[in-house]
Amino acid sequence: MSTLDTLLNDLNTYEDEMIEIRRHLHENPEISFQEKETHDYIYNFYKDLGCDIKNVGEGYGMVVDINDGKPGKKLAIRADFDALAIVEDNDLPFQSKNRGVMHACGHDAHTAYLMVLARELNKIKDEIPGSIRIIHQPAEEVAPGGAKGMIADGALADVNDIIGVHVMTSMDTGVVAYHTKESQTGRSNFDITITGAGGHASMPQISNDAIVAASYFVTELQTIVSRRVDPFDTATLTIGSFEGDGSYNAIKDQVKLKGDVRMMKETTRTVIREQIAQIAKGLEITFGVTVDINYDDNYPVLYNSEKLTNFAVEAIKEQAIPEVTEVLDLGPQNPSEDFSYYGQVVPATFLYVGARPADGGNYPHHSPKFKMNEDSILIAAKTVATVVMRYFDTQE
Amino acid sequence: MSTLDTLLNDLNTYEDEMIEIRRHLHENPEISFQEKETHDYIYNFYKDLGCDIKNVGEGYGMVVDINDGKPGKKLAIRADFDALAIVEDNDLPFQSKNRGVMHACGHDAHTAYLMVLARELNKIKDEIPGSIRIIHQPAEEVAPGGAKGMIADGALADVNDIIGVHVMTSMDTGVVAYHTKESQTGRSNFDITITGAGGHASMPQISNDAIVAASYFVTELQTIVSRRVDPFDTATLTIGSFEGDGSYNAIKDQVKLKGDVRMMKETTRTVIREQIAQIAKGLEITFGVTVDINYDDNYPVLYNSEKLTNFAVEAIKEQAIPEVTEVLDLGPQNPSEDFSYYGQVVPATFLYVGARPADGGNYPHHSPKFKMNEDSILIAAKTVATVVMRYFDTQE
Amino acid sequence: MSTLDTLLNDLNTYEDEMIEIRRHLHENPEISFQEKETHDYIYNFYKDLGCDIKNVGEGYGMVVDINDGKPGKKLAIRADFDALAIVEDNDLPFQSKNRGVMHACGHDAHTAYLMVLARELNKIKDEIPGSIRIIHQPAEEVAPGGAKGMIADGALADVNDIIGVHVMTSMDTGVVAYHTKESQTGRSNFDITITGAGGHASMPQISNDAIVAASYFVTELQTIVSRRVDPFDTATLTIGSFEGDGSYNAIKDQVKLKGDVRMMKETTRTVIREQIAQIAKGLEITFGVTVDINYDDNYPVLYNSEKLTNFAVEAIKEQAIPEVTEVLDLGPQNPSEDFSYYGQVVPATFLYVGARPADGGNYPHHSPKFKMNEDSILIAAKTVATVVMRYFDTQE
Amino acid sequence: MSTLDTLLNDLNTYEDEMIEIRRHLHENPEISFQEKETHDYIYNFYKDLGCDIKNVGEGYGMVVDINDGKPGKKLAIRADFDALAIVEDNDLPFQSKNRGVMHACGHDAHTAYLMVLARELNKIKDEIPGSIRIIHQPAEEVAPGGAKGMIADGALADVNDIIGVHVMTSMDTGVVAYHTKESQTGRSNFDITITGAGGHASMPQISNDAIVAASYFVTELQTIVSRRVDPFDTATLTIGSFEGDGSYNAIKDQVKLKGDVRMMKETTRTVIREQIAQIAKGLEITFGVTVDINYDDNYPVLYNSEKLTNFAVEAIKEQAIPEVTEVLDLGPQNPSEDFSYYGQVVPATFLYVGARPADGGNYPHHSPKFKMNEDSILIAAKTVATVVMRYFDTQE
Repeated sequence: MSTLDTLLNDLNTYEDEMIEIRRHLHENPEISFQEKETHDYIYNFYKDLGCDIKNVGEGYGMVVDINDGKPGKKLAIRADFDALAIVEDNDLPFQSKNRGVMHACGHDAHTAYLMVLARELNKIKDEIPGSIRIIHQPAEEVAPGGAKGMIADGALADVNDIIGVHVMTSMDTGVVAYHTKESQTGRSNFDITITGAGGHASMPQISNDAIVAASYFVTELQTIVSRRVDPFDTATLTIGSFEGDGSYNAIKDQVKLKGDVRMMKETTRTVIREQIAQIAKGLEITFGVTVDINYDDNYPVLYNSEKLTNFAVEAIKEQAIPEVTEVLDLGPQNPSEDFSYYGQVVPATFLYVGARPADGGNYPHHSPKFKMNEDSILIAAKTVATVVMRYFDTQE
Repeated sequence: MSTLDTLLNDLNTYEDEMIEIRRHLHENPEISFQEKETHDYIYNFYKDLGCDIKNVGEGYGMVVDINDGKPGKKLAIRADFDALAIVEDNDLPFQSKNRGVMHACGHDAHTAYLMVLARELNKIKDEIPGSIRIIHQPAEEVAPGGAKGMIADGALADVNDIIGVHVMTSMDTGVVAYHTKESQTGRSNFDITITGAGGHASMPQISNDAIVAASYFVTELQTIVSRRVDPFDTATLTIGSFEGDGSYNAIKDQVKLKGDVRMMKETTRTVIREQIAQIAKGLEITFGVTVDINYDDNYPVLYNSEKLTNFAVEAIKEQAIPEVTEVLDLGPQNPSEDFSYYGQVVPATFLYVGARPADGGNYPHHSPKFKMNEDSILIAAKTVATVVMRYFDTQE
Repeated sequence: MSTLDTLLNDLNTYEDEMIEIRRHLHENPEISFQEKETHDYIYNFYKDLGCDIKNVGEGYGMVVDINDGKPGKKLAIRADFDALAIVEDNDLPFQSKNRGVMHACGHDAHTAYLMVLARELNKIKDEIPGSIRIIHQPAEEVAPGGAKGMIADGALADVNDIIGVHVMTSMDTGVVAYHTKESQTGRSNFDITITGAGGHASMPQISNDAIVAASYFVTELQTIVSRRVDPFDTATLTIGSFEGDGSYNAIKDQVKLKGDVRMMKETTRTVIREQIAQIAKGLEITFGVTVDINYDDNYPVLYNSEKLTNFAVEAIKEQAIPEVTEVLDLGPQNPSEDFSYYGQVVPATFLYVGARPADGGNYPHHSPKFKMNEDSILIAAKTVATVVMRYFDTQE
Repeated sequence: MSTLDTLLNDLNTYEDEMIEIRRHLHENPEISFQEKETHDYIYNFYKDLGCDIKNVGEGYGMVVDINDGKPGKKLAIRADFDALAIVEDNDLPFQSKNRGVMHACGHDAHTAYLMVLARELNKIKDEIPGSIRIIHQPAEEVAPGGAKGMIADGALADVNDIIGVHVMTSMDTGVVAYHTKESQTGRSNFDITITGAGGHASMPQISNDAIVAASYFVTELQTIVSRRVDPFDTATLTIGSFEGDGSYNAIKDQVKLKGDVRMMKETTRTVIREQIAQIAKGLEITFGVTVDINYDDNYPVLYNSEKLTNFAVEAIKEQAIPEVTEVLDLGPQNPSEDFSYYGQVVPATFLYVGARPADGGNYPHHSPKFKMNEDSILIAAKTVATVVMRYFDTQE
């Protein structure tokens, strides 16, 4: 029996423990950049094991090194641990105790599987001909994201490759999915303030109606996706917030917009940013308003290394993990992920682990009713274990 | 010396009292439809004088009858007494004691002059060959307005004609102004809710963006004034509120609009109302949204009787009140006034009394910094006294 | 019997002649600025009478002076004589012989009555204590209009007042109408060329779609009337032509617009012109296009002197011309008239003479089916005769 | 030396002849569906050789069968032969003799190489273990295209696979390119007539401005690509023609639009078609206009069989044709091609043959200045010869 086979067997034994950890995290969610208790829980877990754990970055990020300094390649594994500002609304017995905050995206599962897998990998570290860096990352949900700061503080120092996973409740439990190259959109966000001049509703000629200007602006923005972006690129531009609350009989002096941009090419990111600035400048002249833009290019396009991803897919297929029923190419996905920052520095692969509830029904990630199939936790652990162990096999 | 001359002389004596009353009201403002203390103050003033005072309507409106039942014509005089939901921000020593509520439109002055004038007219009632109805009206500022309910409850029963005044700080103190026929705009207000379907900002195709639909709606509404209304009519259509507050990365499911419409002809009122409904119906189809409209035709166009107004103007000019420096036709005015409801029932005239502060500077009505020249109170009293006494002179 | 009474009687005798002249002109219409034959016809008419006729301006305008140099006031009377580029489509036996050109506005009638009236006034010139200038004007229909050039060449030298009339088929024959002060709109016209960059319909990102830019421009222009113009002013802004003819599969590189602006105040003219320029400038930036504007402020607001108009109205009423059934204030009118140029130099009045066909039906002026009641010609002659003769009566 | 090697050698000998045929066609271009002379030229070429040529479809399409009825697979090769309505504007000595019509897309080259190649294949037919169908297709440039009718009339009867090529002047001569699966966009075209009501520019309230309605329509159409289409799909929607020619002072009663739609998925085709209809229906209500739509779904998405294309690519690479410098995946292309109709019936592959002029400069296809490198004709012949011969090799 190979070391990997033994490891996979051992993981079966710890399935209940992984679920227990996941439920503990689920009951104690913390929102992005404020995950103090979560940090302490993870930190102490490793400390108690005598592992080499270090805080990295200004937030609550941590790395655990296995075989640090040992010759050979260094592979990183990343899991995120922040929750969302959502009021949980389902029937779980281990609901959030922190009302208004909820693990509605599955980061609790990511962290749970990785903590146990890391412990087990640490146990067999002498049999691993290289080193492993476990990355426990905060704040995936909110720009600028936790990855950026951790990388800046050395999270990827000496790392050759990185792997991450995300559970996905829209996909059957048992399915493991992947995509190569551009795989999740990049994202930019912006705040725009349009300022005109207030006045009495009956005298528009001596005011300057900010709601009218902002409305034309929203209609003009549609031309960016429809006429300016390469039709073979992916692009969305959403005004998610139009704050123009006022009264019946006063002309509104100011409107605040919040916007979201997604794309699959960095050239498209630039086109959209420049066009928004251009249209805003035109609006200032057309309507005599002032337009202030606060623009933030945040998450990059998530790029999965073709070589690393294909290697991982082959490894999983060859291992024939009994719980893994299918391995498929899921194609590109609309949402963004700050795992993409790692992929800018080293070859990366981000895999999806199906987690649809056994009854077949599922609510989207970020829904207050979100639930996941906890069988997916063991699957994640075994899938990553397989990729990791075979990764080092190929080194020899 | 005529009775009128004597009355005008007597009013000089009571100028300080009028100012005192005005300042008392200014310190104790109450917002529309909630003027309980103001009502009691006025009610008791007349009660103590032994006047014939009655509550009229479901709110805090009152009428005082002088010579009720006496043969001859009956002339009504109306003053309003509600304040605004504004935080006073000036240096008056008699600032509002009711923070967040302010007499920023001069209704305190209207009430003050009328209380004293009514008392004086009551003193000389035997010399008046007809009857007078004093109308103290609440809630001019907020639809449906106080006038409507008072009229429904008989405020204009047997009344032949009605007169009202408004102080105007944009006009020099000493100037009295008028206009005949259509003089202030009619008004409609509406609430519109546009409902699409929310979703993730990166997946617009499975959502339905209410902000986009509402923005196109605002641009389409511009064509009502630009293309549908008779160019010789007056019309404004303002979206004063566009509530679409949301987050960066979610497509907004619902937007709420508040709107204001002004016009000088009732035919235009109908055109605008029908066009808004039409454009809303088109929007439902174009964007697949639901549009709910709550439409309220409130204040009518203020129509000043040509005969009554010309009579009043001649009376004022002939009397040559020393404080009145000029009597001029001010043309039509943009804002609306619920005095217009009286004009739908009996011939009416609404006069403007200049009240610009002595230093020449002035803030618009409804400004937190609003101040008025208190000399205008005596001028209002004398102007109305003149019209009233000469009105009955012509009856004999 | 007064001189005027005799003149009015004599005009009865010449009614057939006036109709004959009108029909001759109707059969031989010429379009604006090309009225050579019409000029010669009129010129020879006066020449044959031995009248003092002079060409004025660079076009085909003429003036005839009666009592030139005689002390007293000088009153001008103006009639226009150009036709329209319209294919006549009615059942008149004296249809246009010049296919594609038509007297569809009644200028033939204006000229016919004035020629005969001028001759008759000339006959009695010794009894007139002043002088009269007959103005036969070309090119009323097309900017810059014939009036401007004639005035520049002295058409109003020494003139004290001017009168003009227009037949109006929407008004019953027998009615004479007037309005004082601003009476017909001023007008501006413009050409705008919007240039983007052409390309294949499937590759918008490397083209710049001029049709999209121009369409947003048209929607933005709506805000000028809806939000920038004083609601108490009159204003229209029409894009009458949008030339963007192209093919299915090419992105259009250039669009040409033609526009028309009307207003009743010169301040509004300026607001609209500036706003169009502003919105065009904003469009250049918003869409990266080039916008060229060729703007022409042409006809002024037609302003009727209150004094002169009221005098004319009183004169007509007092004379009690039997064919005149009513004299009424018609209010302001939407179309523009280059008679307005005269009113910028001297007091002017422009009267309307009802010309609805006897059967009650009528087609609008400028319709290919236009017909007028020829009874209106005599009425025009008598109306103007009355104003002229009484004008001089008041001089003595 | 293999039969293929011999064939490729022989093709060298006929390069001049291919160029001569191409120049003949270039001098005698005919526009789509009117290619009578071109048909006769091709028909007689084969007739004179004693080939089995048949007219197929109602237009000028022809098929030539080689080894018809012989057991084995049947492979079709298609070339198109129509020209464009373009005035040629370059310095070629063999310019179009048919002014206003031009081979500006290279169909002359397609036909030239195929005629000679077909003849050569026919010579060695006994060595080919299957049959070949040569398809000479008219009318590729204009919907509905020539392919549709030919297929309906049996052009693909018994055909197993089909191959086509297109020269491409934006690609270096020597490069051969391909793409698998969705490779060129599908297309729809439409005509839309928007009818309002005309009138005088100064009276919009009694007209209904079709230019305003059409302009809002164009802005609303932008939301189809920006909000309705899956961001991972490709889509363009172009209004290529906006016919609204009119005059300054008349409100336009009617506007005609021409539109073009491209997409890479048939589901997207449906979404766009339905949304255009929906927005048009909404426009009717919003602006009270009538909207007539004439919608034509024409060319399908061009789908290249993965298996057939990969086979072809391997064949070309293995053959190492000296003139072929590179074989690359070009990715999906924006323009549409009616070769796509064949791909709906049998596995198809459409290859690109670089044809950039030797001096490096190039004008886009459909430009009046279009020129191609004639070396590409031999390359096309050899490339297709290679695929064909190896196709049958694999059959044995």
